[in-house]
Amino acid sequence: MALRRLARAQLSEVADELRSELIRVGSEVGGHFAGSLGTVELTVALHYLLDTPRDRLVWDVGHQAYGHKALTGRLGGLMKIKKADGPSGFLRREESAYDAFGAGHAGTSVSAALGMVEAARRTGSGARVVAIIGDGAATSGMSYEALNHAGHLGSPLRVVFNDNGMSIAPNVGGLSKTRRARHYFESLGLAYLGPVDGHDLDALLPAVESLLAAPGAAVLHVRTQKGRGFAPAEADPYKWHATTPFERATGSVKASGNGGAPSWTHAFADALIRVAERDPRVVAITAAMPDGTGLDRFAKRFPDRVYDVGIAEQHAVTFAAGLAADGLRPVCAIYSTFLQRAFDQVVHDVALQKLPVTFVLDRGGLVGADGPTHHGVLDFAYLRIIPHLVVAAPRDENDLEGLLAAAVDSGRPFALRFPRGAATGVTLLSEPKALPIGRGELLRRGSDVALLGIGRTVPVAMKIAELLAERGVRASVLDARYVKPLDAELILATARATGHLVTIEDHAGLGGFGSAVLELVARELPRTPVRIHGLPDRFTDHGDVNAQYRATAIDPESVAADTLAWLRPAAHARPREREESPRVA
Amino acid sequence: MALRRLARAQLSEVADELRSELIRVGSEVGGHFAGSLGTVELTVALHYLLDTPRDRLVWDVGHQAYGHKALTGRLGGLMKIKKADGPSGFLRREESAYDAFGAGHAGTSVSAALGMVEAARRTGSGARVVAIIGDGAATSGMSYEALNHAGHLGSPLRVVFNDNGMSIAPNVGGLSKTRRARHYFESLGLAYLGPVDGHDLDALLPAVESLLAAPGAAVLHVRTQKGRGFAPAEADPYKWHATTPFERATGSVKASGNGGAPSWTHAFADALIRVAERDPRVVAITAAMPDGTGLDRFAKRFPDRVYDVGIAEQHAVTFAAGLAADGLRPVCAIYSTFLQRAFDQVVHDVALQKLPVTFVLDRGGLVGADGPTHHGVLDFAYLRIIPHLVVAAPRDENDLEGLLAAAVDSGRPFALRFPRGAATGVTLLSEPKALPIGRGELLRRGSDVALLGIGRTVPVAMKIAELLAERGVRASVLDARYVKPLDAELILATARATGHLVTIEDHAGLGGFGSAVLELVARELPRTPVRIHGLPDRFTDHGDVNAQYRATAIDPESVAADTLAWLRPAAHARPREREESPRVA
Repeated sequence: MALRRLARAQLSEVADELRSELIRVGSEVGGHFAGSLGTVELTVALHYLLDTPRDRLVWDVGHQAYGHKALTGRLGGLMKIKKADGPSGFLRREESAYDAFGAGHAGTSVSAALGMVEAARRTGSGARVVAIIGDGAATSGMSYEALNHAGHLGSPLRVVFNDNGMSIAPNVGGLSKTRRARHYFESLGLAYLGPVDGHDLDALLPAVESLLAAPGAAVLHVRTQKGRGFAPAEADPYKWHATTPFERATGSVKASGNGGAPSWTHAFADALIRVAERDPRVVAITAAMPDGTGLDRFAKRFPDRVYDVGIAEQHAVTFAAGLAADGLRPVCAIYSTFLQRAFDQVVHDVALQKLPVTFVLDRGGLVGADGPTHHGVLDFAYLRIIPHLVVAAPRDENDLEGLLAAAVDSGRPFALRFPRGAATGVTLLSEPKALPIGRGELLRRGSDVALLGIGRTVPVAMKIAELLAERGVRASVLDARYVKPLDAELILATARATGHLVTIEDHAGLGGFGSAVLELVARELPRTPVRIHGLPDRFTDHGDVNAQYRATAIDPESVAADTLAWLRPAAHARPREREESPRVA
Repeated sequence: MALRRLARAQLSEVADELRSELIRVGSEVGGHFAGSLGTVELTVALHYLLDTPRDRLVWDVGHQAYGHKALTGRLGGLMKIKKADGPSGFLRREESAYDAFGAGHAGTSVSAALGMVEAARRTGSGARVVAIIGDGAATSGMSYEALNHAGHLGSPLRVVFNDNGMSIAPNVGGLSKTRRARHYFESLGLAYLGPVDGHDLDALLPAVESLLAAPGAAVLHVRTQKGRGFAPAEADPYKWHATTPFERATGSVKASGNGGAPSWTHAFADALIRVAERDPRVVAITAAMPDGTGLDRFAKRFPDRVYDVGIAEQHAVTFAAGLAADGLRPVCAIYSTFLQRAFDQVVHDVALQKLPVTFVLDRGGLVGADGPTHHGVLDFAYLRIIPHLVVAAPRDENDLEGLLAAAVDSGRPFALRFPRGAATGVTLLSEPKALPIGRGELLRRGSDVALLGIGRTVPVAMKIAELLAERGVRASVLDARYVKPLDAELILATARATGHLVTIEDHAGLGGFGSAVLELVARELPRTPVRIHGLPDRFTDHGDVNAQYRATAIDPESVAADTLAWLRPAAHARPREREESPRVA
């Protein structure tokens, strides 16, 4: 690495250039640049003093690692960050030898790095290992588990505690205070060094050298400023955590051009406000994502009825269970992919005790730009196997509110999920209809085949029905609405009427909605064919979400073509006279 | 509660009697008495000073709460603890109003109690809330997440830190040291009181009063001795964590009468030793269960090749991923139910990066006495949806070693699971056969129906085939061995040959092995009926495991009867001439 041939005096120039490049690229393409602006000097210092990639530098999450990407040959790529042909927004071993360990979810770096320390000892590789963890990620339980184990082993693990006082929002907990941070790490058996100003290379370089020279497990407390060097982000790092393209001079954000329907996130926040207005038992919980979940919007209306617990999904769920056990109706708003962190708590603390906790999973389905660590494509499968839990997905904003009301009113453990991005823009009902648990809705009646959608794929199913109608195939369309309990009566009646079922879901093709339908039909109508359309059994990269659905063949055209071929193996290429199916209210 | 009408001077007598009763009952029926012997005075003090059940006393795990059960009307019940007609070995809200929150998995008490503190504030109930957490459970990340949130909120949560220096095995980490404990809790924003001798009521009572009087979140450090008052357990608390019935005078354990085949756990340990002898890359990881997983046996052979990370499943998995990323072949031995804690890490840190980590899930299926918190009946479902992950289950000890070797040799993410209790007792092969990934085995050939078993249900399927043969039905029996990837070729060939498939699994009937077979058959042979036998969609209580399988109708007799009725709806009651099916090697 050319960096390591420079004199120390030249490094601040490198850092300045790097920062300037990050601001330039950020202004052009947007992204998570504020975190990375805070770690510029740290990144330079670590790569200067370590022999990466032989030495192992393990980042956490990845939002702080754009500078790392730039220094390790990916500066040009940053212009295409998170695009299908550009680098990931996080760390990926496949992307660079310098990405020692993949990242995306918070709090993994210390665990992985400790494993690498032990691997280096056993293989005799001589690699030094440094984990970087932010004070936000350090609120995650797994980082504590790892630090406790590291202190216990006393292995030469080196941790950089990158303290900018922020998670995405201001951080939960007091580890930014020097005395607290020292006591925390020392209590777990790590030597504590610092704090040091993370933007002063003259102080930072010797501090990192001391860290590397520490005999056992040690942590260096580095204070950094999120958004450093870009005044608007320094002034409002919460707003600037992630950004769309902006004017460098003024910081004014360029219009993103996504007018039209409000997002599912906003629709959820508004629906939750209305539900909470009717029911004083309702409180809301986020795991360090007040903005991403819409709960900052809810908090403006009900500032005392929302909890930010930190990046702590396990606690979020069991805390909710405690609230519910003593009379409240908590709503846990957690992205689909992050609720994976609390799978056991959903089973053990909520469902087993039949407690009235509502889980609201945003970012269900493919999420596009954030890629494989962030897609929410396993949730139907891991949730529907849990006894007592209701699992649902709304097809539009009215159903979202109807399901949320059903969840809170029912007093049952309840999960509902919706995708990232714009909702449907449907006109909101002044009195949203109650949506009885376990009841779907027949939207269109046809005699040849039934198309079963759930949530985002209900409009997809409607579109498929139209495409099929053009080819003379009359399709029923059913909004299942509930993955659990399924509307068995409606599904079986539709199966009897059509003889063929096709399920479509923005979820893994294994174990999800389609499998639930299949299980039902196998039991009740065993010779009725069911064809499942879901995502293939592999991780999906980052990229454009619509292109991803096309590539995985769960877009309307692909499913329509497949259905034709399935129904008419010999003749599917032959168009028939167009007929219209009656639409069913 | 009568206890609260006593004078303080009488409480030590109450404690002595309670301890004596616990030892008496423990000697008669066995169980987790050592932990509860350490909390006798604490239990008396808390119930004396709190107004339970109006005030909320939240225990963690439950192994320390036998005294609590005895004091709250369940002393008589303890003689039947963990039996179908007796109390749970853990805490259950359904069992007593004094069980404020259910328990079983470690580290949940602080989260739940904090929720109750907030619920009390909002509902104005005036309830005081005390969480008890052991130093073992405090190694769990979720307890840290909860403490951090509690310190941040500053709510009047009261925590008793029950420090006996032990998890089940000696504890990981240094929080037993006074200075470290003080620094740890203070760093998270809690007031620290203590330490106090947990067996000296004269010191303990005022200390608990101080805790209750603390204005905000506070913790009282109580030192206790596991096994207190029973000399053999004091001397060897690890051995006595759980016990079978014993002689009170001598501590000699009564013969448990379960001679015969060694346990699956021992078979795994022995197999792992042999695999590790051949491959120096193999290291083993346990999350505070060296005995339960068999790794204490492995550690005798390879003391430097095993890690106990504490009750820290999330870290265990990502630590393993770090080891694997840099050249080792870690084997993570975690009970099926506890791996639920690390679902996200299996997805995000292991499978996504295709790292060669082997997960060995003991206690798959129903576990009997430990009940709903400990059954391992969701694992096929939550693991098989993860891309890249291989999921398997051995039918006997040789296959266990063959699968373990396949896992380590393959370099793929790999999970294998087996049940609690005795293995089959099969003669061990000197050179266990390699078991190619994705290949099942046809064990018996018949033309009427195919019975597909996996792991523990393979012998069940063989028995069913015999019962069917007595009724003139010729059944094939197939050991699927791999839930993922399925042996599609063999399963489809068998389906074609028989026309009817029956799957049997000691796992939830939703989303598991049967569903995987169903998905395959629906895709490839859509009109072939498949009948799934798994556990019903509810939590199964504690009790005798064989009775439980009978009650859930996945014992041989029930499945055979169901299969007959399914194949011959009209005539299934009519016996046919007995014929023997040829056995297939």
